[in-house]
Amino acid sequence: MSHLEQSFSVKFEYKIFFTSSLFDTGNPIFSDFFKGRPSESVRKIFFVVDQGVADTHPDLLKDIKAYFTAHQDVQLIEHVLIVPGGEASKNDPILFEQIVEAVNTYGIDRHSYIVAIGGGAVLDLVGYAAAVSHRGIKHIRIPTTVLSQNDSGIGVKNGINYKGKKNFLGTFAPPASVFNDDEFLTTLTDRDYRSGISEAIKVALIKDPEFFYWIEKHTQQLAQRDTDTMNYLIKHCAQLHLNHIGGDDPFETGSARPLDFGHWSAHKLEQLSNFEVLHGEAVAMGIALDSAYSFLKGMLTEEKLLKILNVLAALSFNISDPIIQINDQQSPILLGLSEFQEHLGGLLTITLLTDIGTGKEVHEMDHELLIKASAYVTAFTQHYTSQNTIKH
Amino acid sequence: MSHLEQSFSVKFEYKIFFTSSLFDTGNPIFSDFFKGRPSESVRKIFFVVDQGVADTHPDLLKDIKAYFTAHQDVQLIEHVLIVPGGEASKNDPILFEQIVEAVNTYGIDRHSYIVAIGGGAVLDLVGYAAAVSHRGIKHIRIPTTVLSQNDSGIGVKNGINYKGKKNFLGTFAPPASVFNDDEFLTTLTDRDYRSGISEAIKVALIKDPEFFYWIEKHTQQLAQRDTDTMNYLIKHCAQLHLNHIGGDDPFETGSARPLDFGHWSAHKLEQLSNFEVLHGEAVAMGIALDSAYSFLKGMLTEEKLLKILNVLAALSFNISDPIIQINDQQSPILLGLSEFQEHLGGLLTITLLTDIGTGKEVHEMDHELLIKASAYVTAFTQHYTSQNTIKH
Repeated sequence: MSHLEQSFSVKFEYKIFFTSSLFDTGNPIFSDFFKGRPSESVRKIFFVVDQGVADTHPDLLKDIKAYFTAHQDVQLIEHVLIVPGGEASKNDPILFEQIVEAVNTYGIDRHSYIVAIGGGAVLDLVGYAAAVSHRGIKHIRIPTTVLSQNDSGIGVKNGINYKGKKNFLGTFAPPASVFNDDEFLTTLTDRDYRSGISEAIKVALIKDPEFFYWIEKHTQQLAQRDTDTMNYLIKHCAQLHLNHIGGDDPFETGSARPLDFGHWSAHKLEQLSNFEVLHGEAVAMGIALDSAYSFLKGMLTEEKLLKILNVLAALSFNISDPIIQINDQQSPILLGLSEFQEHLGGLLTITLLTDIGTGKEVHEMDHELLIKASAYVTAFTQHYTSQNTIKH
Repeated sequence: MSHLEQSFSVKFEYKIFFTSSLFDTGNPIFSDFFKGRPSESVRKIFFVVDQGVADTHPDLLKDIKAYFTAHQDVQLIEHVLIVPGGEASKNDPILFEQIVEAVNTYGIDRHSYIVAIGGGAVLDLVGYAAAVSHRGIKHIRIPTTVLSQNDSGIGVKNGINYKGKKNFLGTFAPPASVFNDDEFLTTLTDRDYRSGISEAIKVALIKDPEFFYWIEKHTQQLAQRDTDTMNYLIKHCAQLHLNHIGGDDPFETGSARPLDFGHWSAHKLEQLSNFEVLHGEAVAMGIALDSAYSFLKGMLTEEKLLKILNVLAALSFNISDPIIQINDQQSPILLGLSEFQEHLGGLLTITLLTDIGTGKEVHEMDHELLIKASAYVTAFTQHYTSQNTIKH
């Protein structure tokens, strides 16, 4: 027996730019990105846009065309593909085919760019199609929701659903660049706007206590959609996510997923609600449940738990929706544990809290204690609602 | 304007093992691989086997089952998927679906393994399906042809064809491990056996003059299928390929593809022949053409060119098949230049020779000189054939 060994490292680098009015011809940031990477060949650029964004920004396509008439660093492909937003875009294999077909039709090569403008689901779909076309076409993300600007849109994962299973097909493929434009946030519904805050609360709870206390102090400004407050939240949350990804295991070869705090139940209840519950809303419910479980397990003080629940409630998250309630051992939410384990592969690994800002991994969850945790959150909500009804 | 920066490196490591009778229960090498990567969870292993290999090795599936009965490091999934071999396996999207479906049906997670046994095309198909399932299931390659053992099977690329375009969908995804078993080579046809030698000649011509002269000295043993000689050729060629991949640009972000020496015409003529010409045969023809072109361009001496053509002829490669002949500007082979450029993206970049063992990149090819190079190779073959007919 003999063998040869292969060993090499691949370096990945990209930037997340923060701006307003990205496609205003007077804004050089997008054009400068291409000027900073000169090329001897003609580079094409192809846009895929979330239907919801195109609807709420009726001038967007016109602005994009005007931008690339003024800035000819890359050659705009006139046809812009519009795809439905939300989870629907990841469920329909035809949309994947349409993007790959465009790569073929327009001769988009590995030196060209595919840009996605939209929420996290559209970015995931387009990122996947770009990653597997010609073994990887450069992909630029322009996230348009709070959730995608602070979390899903700035990371290295993409994917589509397959046979009803979330992200069954996908890759780890860092983007060429990300552009966060705060103007896109102005047209979000209150529900979409606020739901994106839960991932910031989540990452604060496992990584950064000061950030949690900052959020606690600013719930009112966030609820009132103050631009500067939200810009700070997004940028700080993005930095925490980048730090995590750039850590030990960017492509997640192990079983641990600390960033998935609160997510085992969230994934399940999104599915149980037929995705009527938004991802961020589901994560808020999952955070409440696993924080209450951490307290009942003796890991977290009740004082800290109540701080967490109060922040979620102050931001109007409905953390005791009947769909998240675990009333008995037959509750369908509990199936989320085994599905989460299958998704991770290997051992069940759940992150709980020992303090605000400190996560701890466990490998089993006590169903009876989860039933009690769910009841605790429901009782808290009843109390909170009655208190706040009396106050106002 | 402000921005955040992301930067990280991902390390990739794998081994290529050389053995005989891999699935003999007395051979510990495969079992040892799993013992060397202990895991707390149950790891499954799923096999996809090239139809041609299953046909010529009728005991293979039985041997695999016996092996995993004796060595229970991983849990064998009893169902083995058999897929057609050759380029057909990359043209049929149903086969991709079947592998993904198996991942779903058998609950194959990111800690489990998918093994492909077969020629390069089957390895490409299975590698792609594994790379995108759950964002990357560990993939083991067991190449069964000379070509895949010394070249395609040991690298980091996978892919399937789409709309008639080679490798239109695919990724860069290093395997978990590669096992080269020389027993698989014994059942190859002479044509398959010899065709794999052309990639060794190619890499020798651009990287390693001593290896070329070694091949020149051993053409007779290779033509007679001497096992030790072939084992040396495969291992040395594999090492040269690994060195190249592990160099500056493992995931080929630039335009240069020195390993594609002789390939721009080879890809086109495979397609023109409806893949009746084997890849290795096409590469031999492409090497002859671009070597003759290098001589006519004044880059390579005629003495060195003749050494190259003599080695190819001694190995019975038909380097002047009518299909590779370029008789005029309308020759369909010439379209291969623009298709190769599209495939690379960016500038046309062709590697030529300035010496045996030394490549040089050029960015244009003179069609008139290609017509002359083709005529040179044809005249050489006529002369070689008449000489050798007289001799014997």
